[in-house]
Amino acid sequence: MPHSLSGRAETAMQARVLAELRDHGPLSRTELGERLEVSRTTIGAEVGRLAEIGLAHETGPAVSRGGRRSTMVDLAADIRFVGIAIGATGLVVGVTDGRLAVLATEHVPGDIRRGPDAVLGVALEAVRRLLRDLGVEHPMGVGVGVPGPVDFGRGVPVAPPLMPGWDGYPVRDTLARELGCPAVLDNDVNVMAVGERHAGVARHARDFLFVKIGTGIGCGVVVDGDLYRGVNGCAGDIGHMQVRGDGRRCVCGNLDCLEAYAGGAALAEDATAAALRGRSPVLAEMLAERGHLTAEDIGTAVARGDLEAATLLRESGQRVGQVVAGLVSFFNPGLIVIGGRVSGLGHALLAEIRGTAYQRSLPLATGNLPIVLSELPERGGVIGAARLVSSTVFAAAST
Amino acid sequence: MPHSLSGRAETAMQARVLAELRDHGPLSRTELGERLEVSRTTIGAEVGRLAEIGLAHETGPAVSRGGRRSTMVDLAADIRFVGIAIGATGLVVGVTDGRLAVLATEHVPGDIRRGPDAVLGVALEAVRRLLRDLGVEHPMGVGVGVPGPVDFGRGVPVAPPLMPGWDGYPVRDTLARELGCPAVLDNDVNVMAVGERHAGVARHARDFLFVKIGTGIGCGVVVDGDLYRGVNGCAGDIGHMQVRGDGRRCVCGNLDCLEAYAGGAALAEDATAAALRGRSPVLAEMLAERGHLTAEDIGTAVARGDLEAATLLRESGQRVGQVVAGLVSFFNPGLIVIGGRVSGLGHALLAEIRGTAYQRSLPLATGNLPIVLSELPERGGVIGAARLVSSTVFAAAST
Repeated sequence: MPHSLSGRAETAMQARVLAELRDHGPLSRTELGERLEVSRTTIGAEVGRLAEIGLAHETGPAVSRGGRRSTMVDLAADIRFVGIAIGATGLVVGVTDGRLAVLATEHVPGDIRRGPDAVLGVALEAVRRLLRDLGVEHPMGVGVGVPGPVDFGRGVPVAPPLMPGWDGYPVRDTLARELGCPAVLDNDVNVMAVGERHAGVARHARDFLFVKIGTGIGCGVVVDGDLYRGVNGCAGDIGHMQVRGDGRRCVCGNLDCLEAYAGGAALAEDATAAALRGRSPVLAEMLAERGHLTAEDIGTAVARGDLEAATLLRESGQRVGQVVAGLVSFFNPGLIVIGGRVSGLGHALLAEIRGTAYQRSLPLATGNLPIVLSELPERGGVIGAARLVSSTVFAAAST
Repeated sequence: MPHSLSGRAETAMQARVLAELRDHGPLSRTELGERLEVSRTTIGAEVGRLAEIGLAHETGPAVSRGGRRSTMVDLAADIRFVGIAIGATGLVVGVTDGRLAVLATEHVPGDIRRGPDAVLGVALEAVRRLLRDLGVEHPMGVGVGVPGPVDFGRGVPVAPPLMPGWDGYPVRDTLARELGCPAVLDNDVNVMAVGERHAGVARHARDFLFVKIGTGIGCGVVVDGDLYRGVNGCAGDIGHMQVRGDGRRCVCGNLDCLEAYAGGAALAEDATAAALRGRSPVLAEMLAERGHLTAEDIGTAVARGDLEAATLLRESGQRVGQVVAGLVSFFNPGLIVIGGRVSGLGHALLAEIRGTAYQRSLPLATGNLPIVLSELPERGGVIGAARLVSSTVFAAAST
């Protein structure tokens, strides 16, 4: 069936043209041909088909590079994607254009434990509000990240420990039906890693790790520019790797998991214990004032000169560093980005992570390895989610 | 430059045709077209060009599948590759055909510490002997694996700890010049992983890990069917990941590296200490007989009911299992193959590795995860080395 086969190849080429325009902006036909290694004539035909279905169009003559003048091509200006980043304690929704520039976002507080009906209801309200304000009638796709393991193929959470009531819930299909467009579901760490690759410090990295330290700890793995999910979609689950410890029991049942020491929940507990046992006057004062402590309070206490808080921060950073050192040995990445709420503890935490990781890894692997904090605020998840669905939409658009 | 661009695409297609024939044997033009998603006519043209340069040819009509009868295509019967697997204490050389079937091998003992001139000299003698016996005048390429870090792009070892005198030595270019054909240099673990993928238990795995336990410990990482080398080519260096321990100093200078407990050298030292300190009568007897002990002797002692040897084996397996558990969490592979000399300790070691790894990893990642021993004897490295150079040769053949 040579004819249908050639049809499939064309489709792939159209998706690649769209991805180039999404990632690099308007390009001339000549530039597209060079990037995709096909002739200008082929590009012309592909762009013609994309124009028919309203996804891309020619915008006029390109600046001459000598020789015959080429024609500029751009994505359709009215493409809109929706990104939803659901966290444990709140969610961010956003709307982007075809190049994933964020046009508007809204942050909505809300506990994930209220269950999928309530949380997705709130998310959809916010999305519809944004779409109405922006005058968007038909978003082209919606991407969503949730703080737990996901079956990417089926679009459902799988036994997510922090998300009671979400196990097996058809998140992807619910959003697709409600918004009348294709949807993609992934875990929050993967979504953040993809956002970092599109618009953050990892923009030029092909093989990198995004380590998220929030309530839990996870890692997005990017190989040759694409997300690596592993055979069951649970690659990057580093929160339960074993670290040096005193035999602390993790919620997963094992001993000495990283998350049991360095996750946001564990740090908040340690801070509370330090306050209650009289080891930290600053944390005790903050606890008395507010009735509870968070991981971020440790940073405040450190800034106020609290020694016990500094110890907590140091030990946490060293344990993350121990795991990061192992990942450096195994994966030899070109960049490690640290993100998530706890990364708000900032450069003191980063210094400990770096110190341990560099000390424990071989020089060849760490010689040029930057370990840096994410510079994307919370819209990183929105951009990543939008990007994931954009790839699906582009691939499917012309079949 | 549409013309040269289209030329480059054709070249890639020819390399893909050759790789299909190498990996799957003779195929009809129709089958090739389906596998590569191009028309039968395109395949015909590609095969014509490959026939001109003597790499592939049509062998006659295919069995009819209904409709027009297709034509069978095969690699040229006289393609020969050389594979050289250099270990710490000896080397194996082999000659394969185009599909990497091993036609002859030779094992040559020899200490890698004698340096590159001596060791490569011995290797070349053996290669020339095999080629002469087989009547091969012009091998198409030579692949070689060495037990240390390699700069793949430059074809030289980089500060290899077990290989004094080899740092920066032009191994690849020396072999290419001496044998008059393209050469490729990689580390032994990568080469063994590639051999496992081509002809071993990983034949049908796309994402898997090959853990080699020899004098040192390393890991080959295969992502989507291809070797993942990391940004500096040192991915898979798991021998220096940190494990539970009593503060033992590793040769690398750090404390509690996996290799310092579970590598072949460490196990031999532990066995010797057990023999000398009267904790193991069986090992003491073996030491008295032969004057030294190896890691494999522990297996013999276990088989003879020695309790201390059983403890050494168990603790070693548990530490490998601890690291493997971390890799499962991070990489979520579909298969883990355990190979290398120490894997000769067999199923008792494997049971400990499995026990620890399954216990410490999340059910989603281990539900269907086989952890198995390599079934390839020492020719695995030869096949892998030959395969690596075959890809280079195929890619370059028609440029």
